[in-house]
Amino acid sequence: MCEANAYIKRDGHETLVMEGVFVLRPEGDKVLLENIFGEQKLVKAEIGQISLMEHKIILNPTF
Amino acid sequence: MCEANAYIKRDGHETLVMEGVFVLRPEGDKVLLENIFGEQKLVKAEIGQISLMEHKIILNPTF
Repeated sequence: MCEANAYIKRDGHETLVMEGVFVLRPEGDKVLLENIFGEQKLVKAEIGQISLMEHKIILNPTF
Repeated sequence: MCEANAYIKRDGHETLVMEGVFVLRPEGDKVLLENIFGEQKLVKAEIGQISLMEHKIILNPTF
């Protein structure tokens, strides 16, 4: 499987937002995440970096 | 391996930009792509959608 975990980065700390993400779509000042369990989450953030090698998505909060 | 192919979408047509991408990082109105061969590409685009299930990254050109 090729999914990744999404973290939001605030003040240098990374907090897990969603595990098993396999779809990401920026929507204005939010990012839509969808995971392998069929859950969706709309996070007020932008994509900071995605590393498919580490299976890691870093989101930066938008204000 | 968990890398994806990146395509740019213009007028409904998808053109392959880079194969084997494993790092993506938005940088202003560009997106930095890095692949498993150590190549980097800075594309004048924003992330449209990423589907890790299909191993597919869709970029939309910025103007």
